[in-house]
Amino acid sequence: MSLRELLERKKRGGKLAAGEITALVEDTVAGRIPDYQLAAFLMAVWFRGLDVEETAALTRAMWKSGSEIDLASVPEPKVDKHSTGGVGDKVSLPLIGIAMACGLRVPMLSGRALGHTGGTLDKLESIPGYSTVFERQRFLRLLAAPGGSIVGQGDDLVPADRELYALRDVTATVDCVPLIVASILSKKLAAGVRAVVMDVKVGSGAFMQSLPEARSLAEALVATGKYFGLRMSVLFTRMDEPLGMAVGNASEVIESVELLRGRGPAALREVTLELAAAMLQLGGLESDAAAAKGRAAATLADGSALDRFRRMVEGQGGRLDWERPDCGLPLAPVAALVRAPRRAWLHAVQGTEVGWAVVELGGGRQRKGESIDPSVGLRWHVEIGAHAEAGETVAEVLARPGTDTKRVVSRLQAALAWGDTAPEPKPWILGRYPESV
Amino acid sequence: MSLRELLERKKRGGKLAAGEITALVEDTVAGRIPDYQLAAFLMAVWFRGLDVEETAALTRAMWKSGSEIDLASVPEPKVDKHSTGGVGDKVSLPLIGIAMACGLRVPMLSGRALGHTGGTLDKLESIPGYSTVFERQRFLRLLAAPGGSIVGQGDDLVPADRELYALRDVTATVDCVPLIVASILSKKLAAGVRAVVMDVKVGSGAFMQSLPEARSLAEALVATGKYFGLRMSVLFTRMDEPLGMAVGNASEVIESVELLRGRGPAALREVTLELAAAMLQLGGLESDAAAAKGRAAATLADGSALDRFRRMVEGQGGRLDWERPDCGLPLAPVAALVRAPRRAWLHAVQGTEVGWAVVELGGGRQRKGESIDPSVGLRWHVEIGAHAEAGETVAEVLARPGTDTKRVVSRLQAALAWGDTAPEPKPWILGRYPESV
Repeated sequence: MSLRELLERKKRGGKLAAGEITALVEDTVAGRIPDYQLAAFLMAVWFRGLDVEETAALTRAMWKSGSEIDLASVPEPKVDKHSTGGVGDKVSLPLIGIAMACGLRVPMLSGRALGHTGGTLDKLESIPGYSTVFERQRFLRLLAAPGGSIVGQGDDLVPADRELYALRDVTATVDCVPLIVASILSKKLAAGVRAVVMDVKVGSGAFMQSLPEARSLAEALVATGKYFGLRMSVLFTRMDEPLGMAVGNASEVIESVELLRGRGPAALREVTLELAAAMLQLGGLESDAAAAKGRAAATLADGSALDRFRRMVEGQGGRLDWERPDCGLPLAPVAALVRAPRRAWLHAVQGTEVGWAVVELGGGRQRKGESIDPSVGLRWHVEIGAHAEAGETVAEVLARPGTDTKRVVSRLQAALAWGDTAPEPKPWILGRYPESV
Repeated sequence: MSLRELLERKKRGGKLAAGEITALVEDTVAGRIPDYQLAAFLMAVWFRGLDVEETAALTRAMWKSGSEIDLASVPEPKVDKHSTGGVGDKVSLPLIGIAMACGLRVPMLSGRALGHTGGTLDKLESIPGYSTVFERQRFLRLLAAPGGSIVGQGDDLVPADRELYALRDVTATVDCVPLIVASILSKKLAAGVRAVVMDVKVGSGAFMQSLPEARSLAEALVATGKYFGLRMSVLFTRMDEPLGMAVGNASEVIESVELLRGRGPAALREVTLELAAAMLQLGGLESDAAAAKGRAAATLADGSALDRFRRMVEGQGGRLDWERPDCGLPLAPVAALVRAPRRAWLHAVQGTEVGWAVVELGGGRQRKGESIDPSVGLRWHVEIGAHAEAGETVAEVLARPGTDTKRVVSRLQAALAWGDTAPEPKPWILGRYPESV
């Protein structure tokens, strides 16, 4: 195959055949394509896109590039949830408890923090003893009971995605709908998932900044998924300020457990229950949205969701002090406060800046492989639309002694927009795809 | 400098500052930028372009990336000619003789054959003894008398262009106006040239297939050249069938000398004299186009152009038998004929195919560094617009014994379009830029 010729064709807006895309992916994994040609190809795809057939061919080739997980022995209904990533997005933790308590099986392979967004694996690893390593036997055992597992994707699953993602990251081609679609779906398919609820985050703290962008991603995801019998429903959820009050790894585990105890921030509860309801509908356990949401909420009230989550954590080797409000997890001290500059309403938060502030504190990573301090983070006090008095605390900065908190505080202050009147209230659920879901 | 950020900006259609472009080129030459990022950048530029300020910044940075030739000691008028490349384009050879005979100094750094187009250096190297190596003393001596020299560009001139061109070649980003402009102009500026007539080839045998494309290249060349006081005039010349009757290295030298003897094909004579006239006007030796062309033609009639060319060739160490019609150069035997399939007019020739046929015979190269057989080539018999009887010879194939001439012949036959009526005659000079030239 001459990549030179494929490059030329894609550059001019032409179409690639499925066989050409398969060869491209195989040659990539085999190291037969120079990085520079692949980089030029990715940029051409950024400009020209891929149609649904090309995207499906890319998805299949990536899916088949490594080993696969066979979930045939796990009874239905099996439903996964995937988030496009945001700031303070710890939804997977309480959600898996709720879903399991409702009778779903949840095989969830998660990722690590990168850039301004957090990663579910890093959050779980702040729990002493929790192993995020994929072990086939344990994974299947936990899917049998309590009904779910959250672990990392092993190295042998979809190696093509690792190759391509590393290159996309350094060539400014991450934000490309067909490449995102193929990356997400190939991993789901290789993991044996055939039903997934997508949480597409939209806003200043998300990769998709606007609803039209998010909608085109959802359309491409659903259309491509159909090629493989992958059933999907998509929720568009708002991601400006952090979701919930805690940002940072241990803090987010604590807040998740708080939610499972029937408390926790209203925003986090709302988004989690809506996603849980979508999972119940997709899994065929409920047909009515309100009923599904009510069933999900009941698992928080009766403690069954917390119980399932606890059994899952312990099944992964994790040890939490379930009696203590802070679960016995160490947190860095409050080292600084972000205050309201005047008596005003909070109109907007530049969410990516909040995420980067946590990275700066040591709670995230700029590059793959960097270590993370689970104890640092932010405790948020004011949501968008809320009112604050002059000098009132907007956020507490949890930091290790010696951290330059001044930089972090001024970064956060610059990320807030205040107004003299109350803004229109903004919903957390911005829409769905397909609409009827 | 973060190339990641520049990439992101250019991808979204933003503008790069001169300092950023300079750093990019310096880092490229120093090997500090990974090829894959540069490749993605080149593809983003292919899609987004560079404005005239960015193009000028790139040109300057490339120009300054290596050493420079100082032509201050060479008296005016100094005028160079540059062609964008075509099939059978041997114009530089007779042209330099004419220009010198008219009193111009012509410092000409030429290139090698690549892909379907020929290269002036390869043609000259079919002359026994001719050294195309740039040697400063010899170059300046020949510019003093007979008034010109054609050699290769040394390795220390514009190293950035070599780096970038090698990458453009394998990433399908050669056909990009601002990159072409910066590549051409940086080399002219580093070679000390400040006045140049551009021969922009247009048609099926050229890189620019249409006049609007060629015009946008000319506009960008002239606008960018102005930044550096580089005076230019551009001729658009037709390049469908080969220019002249000979294609192939030794054959083209023979045809060039034929033209200098006052004979040779009318098309080659026409294009050569028009370019010579433009050089005389740009050099200020003539203000009227017709007078300039007449003066150029006179040097063919009185033998002074041939005399200058001969002195230049001998100054470079070249030995030709100036008495013999074939200059004593060995040619491969006529191994096959391309014939007219029926009684018809030749309407069109797919010029790139003619070029590739010569490459297939061994007269060009697919990759840098491949060796060339100067004796092979084609002898063309029929121009576009001419009439041929069924079975009449359209071209003779000069090939080494053992060559698969059948493939070449069928390739050439497929490259010809015949019609039952005479087509509209096509001019050789398609236009000029600026128009007034």
